Amino acid sequence: MSISAFDHPFLSGLLGDDEVSAYFSVEADIRAMLAFEAALAKAEARHGLVPQAAAQRIVEVCTHFQPDVASLKSATATDGVVVPDLVKQLRKAVGGEAAQHVHFGATSQDVIDTSLMIRLKAVAFLFSNRLFAVAAALEKLDKQYGSNRLMGYTRMQAALPITVSDRLRTWCDPLEKYRDRLTQETFPLQFGGAVGTLEKLGLKSVAVRASLAQELDLTDEPQWQNQRAKIAELAGLFSLISGSLGKIGQDIALLAQAGDEIELAGGGGSSAMPHKQNPVAAEALVSLARFNAVQLSGIHQSLVHEQERSGAAWTLEWLLLPPMVIATAASLRSAHELIGNVKRLGVAS
Amino acid sequence: MSISAFDHPFLSGLLGDDEVSAYFSVEADIRAMLAFEAALAKAEARHGLVPQAAAQRIVEVCTHFQPDVASLKSATATDGVVVPDLVKQLRKAVGGEAAQHVHFGATSQDVIDTSLMIRLKAVAFLFSNRLFAVAAALEKLDKQYGSNRLMGYTRMQAALPITVSDRLRTWCDPLEKYRDRLTQETFPLQFGGAVGTLEKLGLKSVAVRASLAQELDLTDEPQWQNQRAKIAELAGLFSLISGSLGKIGQDIALLAQAGDEIELAGGGGSSAMPHKQNPVAAEALVSLARFNAVQLSGIHQSLVHEQERSGAAWTLEWLLLPPMVIATAASLRSAHELIGNVKRLGVAS
Amino acid sequence: MSISAFDHPFLSGLLGDDEVSAYFSVEADIRAMLAFEAALAKAEARHGLVPQAAAQRIVEVCTHFQPDVASLKSATATDGVVVPDLVKQLRKAVGGEAAQHVHFGATSQDVIDTSLMIRLKAVAFLFSNRLFAVAAALEKLDKQYGSNRLMGYTRMQAALPITVSDRLRTWCDPLEKYRDRLTQETFPLQFGGAVGTLEKLGLKSVAVRASLAQELDLTDEPQWQNQRAKIAELAGLFSLISGSLGKIGQDIALLAQAGDEIELAGGGGSSAMPHKQNPVAAEALVSLARFNAVQLSGIHQSLVHEQERSGAAWTLEWLLLPPMVIATAASLRSAHELIGNVKRLGVAS
Amino acid sequence: MSISAFDHPFLSGLLGDDEVSAYFSVEADIRAMLAFEAALAKAEARHGLVPQAAAQRIVEVCTHFQPDVASLKSATATDGVVVPDLVKQLRKAVGGEAAQHVHFGATSQDVIDTSLMIRLKAVAFLFSNRLFAVAAALEKLDKQYGSNRLMGYTRMQAALPITVSDRLRTWCDPLEKYRDRLTQETFPLQFGGAVGTLEKLGLKSVAVRASLAQELDLTDEPQWQNQRAKIAELAGLFSLISGSLGKIGQDIALLAQAGDEIELAGGGGSSAMPHKQNPVAAEALVSLARFNAVQLSGIHQSLVHEQERSGAAWTLEWLLLPPMVIATAASLRSAHELIGNVKRLGVAS
Repeated sequence: MSISAFDHPFLSGLLGDDEVSAYFSVEADIRAMLAFEAALAKAEARHGLVPQAAAQRIVEVCTHFQPDVASLKSATATDGVVVPDLVKQLRKAVGGEAAQHVHFGATSQDVIDTSLMIRLKAVAFLFSNRLFAVAAALEKLDKQYGSNRLMGYTRMQAALPITVSDRLRTWCDPLEKYRDRLTQETFPLQFGGAVGTLEKLGLKSVAVRASLAQELDLTDEPQWQNQRAKIAELAGLFSLISGSLGKIGQDIALLAQAGDEIELAGGGGSSAMPHKQNPVAAEALVSLARFNAVQLSGIHQSLVHEQERSGAAWTLEWLLLPPMVIATAASLRSAHELIGNVKRLGVAS
Repeated sequence: MSISAFDHPFLSGLLGDDEVSAYFSVEADIRAMLAFEAALAKAEARHGLVPQAAAQRIVEVCTHFQPDVASLKSATATDGVVVPDLVKQLRKAVGGEAAQHVHFGATSQDVIDTSLMIRLKAVAFLFSNRLFAVAAALEKLDKQYGSNRLMGYTRMQAALPITVSDRLRTWCDPLEKYRDRLTQETFPLQFGGAVGTLEKLGLKSVAVRASLAQELDLTDEPQWQNQRAKIAELAGLFSLISGSLGKIGQDIALLAQAGDEIELAGGGGSSAMPHKQNPVAAEALVSLARFNAVQLSGIHQSLVHEQERSGAAWTLEWLLLPPMVIATAASLRSAHELIGNVKRLGVAS
Repeated sequence: MSISAFDHPFLSGLLGDDEVSAYFSVEADIRAMLAFEAALAKAEARHGLVPQAAAQRIVEVCTHFQPDVASLKSATATDGVVVPDLVKQLRKAVGGEAAQHVHFGATSQDVIDTSLMIRLKAVAFLFSNRLFAVAAALEKLDKQYGSNRLMGYTRMQAALPITVSDRLRTWCDPLEKYRDRLTQETFPLQFGGAVGTLEKLGLKSVAVRASLAQELDLTDEPQWQNQRAKIAELAGLFSLISGSLGKIGQDIALLAQAGDEIELAGGGGSSAMPHKQNPVAAEALVSLARFNAVQLSGIHQSLVHEQERSGAAWTLEWLLLPPMVIATAASLRSAHELIGNVKRLGVAS
Repeated sequence: MSISAFDHPFLSGLLGDDEVSAYFSVEADIRAMLAFEAALAKAEARHGLVPQAAAQRIVEVCTHFQPDVASLKSATATDGVVVPDLVKQLRKAVGGEAAQHVHFGATSQDVIDTSLMIRLKAVAFLFSNRLFAVAAALEKLDKQYGSNRLMGYTRMQAALPITVSDRLRTWCDPLEKYRDRLTQETFPLQFGGAVGTLEKLGLKSVAVRASLAQELDLTDEPQWQNQRAKIAELAGLFSLISGSLGKIGQDIALLAQAGDEIELAGGGGSSAMPHKQNPVAAEALVSLARFNAVQLSGIHQSLVHEQERSGAAWTLEWLLLPPMVIATAASLRSAHELIGNVKRLGVAS
C-alpha cells in the first residue's frame, strides 16, 4: 500500500489528494462498473433485448452488490481484466433466469473504460472548481499587492521592473483557459461488444447505445476501444494544468530564494537546520509538473493500440493515468494552499 | 548535416518530408522573422510610434534582406538567440535615421515565437489537407473492400470476424477529428517586449499589438512568452496524429505478418533475403508515433518556464518541436503511400 | 489505496509483486530509517561523539519504536520530508539526556537515501535470484524443445527458419548480463549532514562515515545527495531488465497470435468470448517494459538537482522509483510464470 | 537541413558540435559501412569462404568508393535500410567475379550496427578526453577559489556556508566516474546474417566473426541484433554525462541570478536590454540535459524489439541516438567554455 507516493501512509500528506483519490478507490471503480451493468440491463430492456423483470432484478442487485475482492484479484491475475470474474460473481448474486441477461452483448473494455469515464467526468468537475479557487486566490493577491513592484527576470537575470499584476496575469490566464476546456470537455460512453461491432445487438445496437449513454449521463459516441485520443487529450490537459502550476511553483521558489520580494507562511522545517523555512509546496508543484510530463509520453505510446483491442497498450494506460489524475489534484490542492500562504508579494512602490 | 534522420542525406527518403521541411529551413525562418520586423514597423507607423518613411524603408529592406548566416551562427553561440545579431545586421542594411526604428519595443522572443507561429499555421493547413487525403484513401479502400471479411483480434488473439469497414472506421474516425481540430486551431502573435509588458509602447501597446496581429494574419492575444500551453497543445495534436497513424501502421504490419488478409505493393527489399517484401512504411509509422510520444514529454517539461522568460525551457522547445513537426509530416506522407499500396484487404465473403 | 496498479486491490494480482512490495511498505521504510539512526548513534559513540550510554539507549529504542504514522503524514505535508517529525518522535521515545544525541550531525536526506539503499540492496539480491530462475526456466525449455524448428521473422515477415535454441539464446543472454551487473552493484551509504560537509563531526567525519557504512553493510562513499547517478544507473538497469523481458513477452504474444509454433497454458479468459485464451502475461510484460522506459526519463530529469539539495528533483525520484522497482519485480514474476506455461515451442523437425 | 538544432545553420553555434558531428556525417557512415564490407571480405578470405583475389578487389574498391547518395536515398525510402542499394552499387563497382562475394553472409543490420559501433567507439574516446578537460578546468577553479566561502543552499533556501571546494567536488566527482566507465566500455561487432544465425557461414561462422571483430578493432560477441542493451547503456551513460553537466549549468545560472558569488565572462546579449549578461551556456546545459533525459525513454522503448529483427524499434533508435550523441558533445563543449568563463567563484573569507 506504499509503492505510490500518491496513496502512501505519510508521503500522501504532501503529494496525495484525499478527495480525488476517492474516485480511484476500488469501491468507486466497482460502483461505477456496476452502474454500467445496471444501466445496460435497463437500456436493453427498454429496447426489448432483456426482459423487464430481469433488468429490474439486475439493477436491484447492482445497487448493493459487494463483490469478493480477493477473488477479483486472483482472477485478474489470470484474465488480465477484472470483468469476467466480476460478471460471474454478479450473475451468481442475481441468480435465476435473470442471471443470463447480465452483461449481455458487452465486453470487458466497455465496463472498464465506461467506469473510467464516469469517474473522470466527476473529477473534471472538481478540477474545474479548483482551478476557479486558485484563480480567485490569485485575484485576491492581485487586489492586495498588484501595484507592488517586482523585478522582471529573463534568462535568470534581472531585466526590468514589472508590477505584481504583470506577473500574476501570466500565472492566472492559462488556468482560466484550462477551466474553459474542462467545462467544454465531453465524456463518452464506451460500448462496442467483443470486437467493437455490438454484433449481439443487431439492428438495435445504436439505439441501445444511445439509451445507455443517456442513462449514464455520458456522451453517445461510436466505440473508441482502440482509438485512445480522448484518453490522451485528457491526460494532456491534466499535464497542462500541473505544468502551469509547476511554473508558479518554480517562480515562487525562486522568489523565496532571493527572499526580498515575497513573504511566505507555512514553509517546511528541516531536521538539520531549525532556522530554515523551506518553500516545500512550491517545490512539490515542480515535481508534480515534471511527473505528469513524464507520464504523458507513455499515454501517447498507448495510441499504438493494435487491432480491435490491445492488452499491452490498454494495461499501460492503467499504470499511468490514475497517478496522473492524482498528481493533478495534488498540484491544484498545493497551489491553492501555497498561494494562500503568500503574505506579501513584491515591494510597495 | 546528418545528425537528424529527418534531414539526413539518405534516411530522409524514408523518414523526412521535403514539403514541410521547407518551412523549417533557415531561409523560411529568416523570411518569417523579417516579416515580423516589417509588420512591426508598419503597425508602429500606423500608431505614430515610428515615422512613415522609416517604416517604408524597413519594410523595403526586409523584403529582400539576406543576412550573413555565419555571423548569425557565431552570435547565437554567445547570445543564445539569433535576434540581437539579426537586428544588428538589419539595422545596418536599413541605414540612416530609419535604422534606430527597427525592432522598436520588441524582444527576441517576439520575433522567434512569432516566426514559429507563422510557419506552424502554414504547416497546419498542409496537415489538414493531408489528413483529408489519407481519409479519402481509406474511403476508397472501404468502397472496394469494405464488405470483405477480416478476423477481429483482441489481445493478439483471433476473436470474431468483422468486416473491413469495421476496421477502417476505427482507422479513419480519429483522423477526421484531428482535421477538425486543426481547422479550428488559432495561431497567436507573440508580442511582449523585454519583460512582457510592452513598456516602450505605453498606452498604444494594445493597439499596436492588434495591428501587428492583423498584419501577420495571426490571432491577437496578450503575450504568452512564459505560458507555453499553445506549444504543448499543438505538439500534443501532432503526437495524436502520428499516434493514430502508428496504430494503422501496426495493424498493417500485423496483417502483413499473417499474410492472408492483405496484399501490399511497394514493400522493401532485404540485402540478405531477396524474396522478402517488408512492410517498411507500416513499421516507419510505428517508429514515428513512438518518436513523437517521446518528444511530447519534453515539450511538457518546458511548461515549467520560470519567470518572465526561461532560456533553458525555451531552448528545449527548439530542440524538440521541429523534429516533431517533421515526424508528423513524414507520418502523414507515409500513411498515404502505404494505404495507396494496399492492393487487397480482407477476404471476400 | 488504489491509485497505483502496483498496490491495487485487484490489479496488483496481475501487475504487483507481494514479495518485493514488502520492501516498499511504510513499515520497511521506517525500520530502515530507524536502523540508520541506531547505526549512527553506535558509530558516533565509537568515535567519541556520543556517550556510549546514550547510543545504547538510542539503539534499544530504535529496535522497537513504532512512530505515530498519522503525525508523520501531517508533518510531511508541511516539511516535505518525514524525518524532522520522525526524529522528534524518536527523541521523545528515547527521552532523558540521550534524546539530544539522536540524529546528531545528520540530515533528512541521509536518513531517506540510506533507507532506500538498504532496501534496494535487498531487492537487487531478489532480482538476481529471479533472473537466475527465469534463465533456468529458459534453459529447461531449451533442453525440451531447443532443436525444434521456428520460423525466423525480420521486420514482421517470415525470413528463414531458425531453431528454438537460436531464439532462446537471444532471450536468455541479456538476462545473464543483468544478473552479473546486479551482483557487482554497490549500494552506498548517504551521509553528508545539513549541506553535505558533515560540518558537525569535524575531523572525525570520515571515520564516522566509514563506521556507519560498515554498520549498515553499505559501501562507504562521500555524500552523493545532489549527485544522483547511482539512482539513475539502478533505474536504468531495472528498465533494461523489464525491457528485455518485454521483448520476450512481445515475441510470445506474436507466437500466440500465429498459433502454430507455441502451446501456452494459463491464458486469460474473456467476458465476451469464453473460447479465447489470451496471452495475458505476455502482454503485461510489454506494458511493464514500456512503463519503466517512460519513468526512466523522469529519473534522468532528476539529475538536474540544483545546489546542495533540491526538493523538487528529489521528490520527483520518490514519485518514480518505487513504481519502477515493482514494475521490474512484477515483470520478473510474470516472465517466470509465462515461461513455465509454455507447453511447446517450435515444431519438431 | 535545419530541422535539428544540432546541425542548424545558426542554432548549431549554440547547440551543435562540429568535431563530433563529423562522425555522424553521411560520409563517415558510408566510410564505416565500407570498412565493414572490406573487413568482411578479408575475414572470409582468411577462412577460405571468399577467394583472396576477390577479397583484395573488394578491399581496394571499398577504400575509395563513393556511392550515389541520391540513389541511396530513394532506395532507403523503399527498403527501409540503406544497405541493399549500397551493396548493389558496391557490387557494380567491384565488378567481375568478385562482385558476388561482396557482403557474403551478412545482412543490413550487421553493416549498420557495426558502422555505428565503429563511430561510437571513436566518439567515446573524445568524450573521455573532454570529461578530462572539464574536470581539469574545475580543478583549476578549485586551486584559485577553493577556499572561498559559498552559501550552501538546500531546497532553494540559504542553509549554511560551505567552501567553493565543497561545491566543486560535487560537480567533479561524477565526471570522473563517467570517464572511468567510458574507458572500460566495450564496443561489440554486430554480425549475425539474415536471422542472426550466420547460416551461410556454417561451421566457420564463429571464426569469421572473431577475425572480423579483430579486423575492425571491435569486441567479438554473439549477434545482438534484437538485444539492444548495449545501445541503451551507452545512451544512458550519455544522459548521465549531460545530466551532471546540466546540474552544473543550473547551479551556475542560480549563482548568476543571485549575482554576488560569481563573476562570469562571455554572457549573451539581449536584443531588448543591452545591459544584460545572460548565462546562456549555463541554460543550454540544462536544456541539453533535459533533452537527453527525454530521448532516453525512447531508446528504452526500443528494447521491446520483436522477433529476429524489428524495423519499428530499430528505426526508432536511428531517430533518437545520433541527436543524443551530439547533445552530449555540445554539453561537454559548453561546460568547458562556461567553466573557463568563471572569473571568480565564492567570496574570499
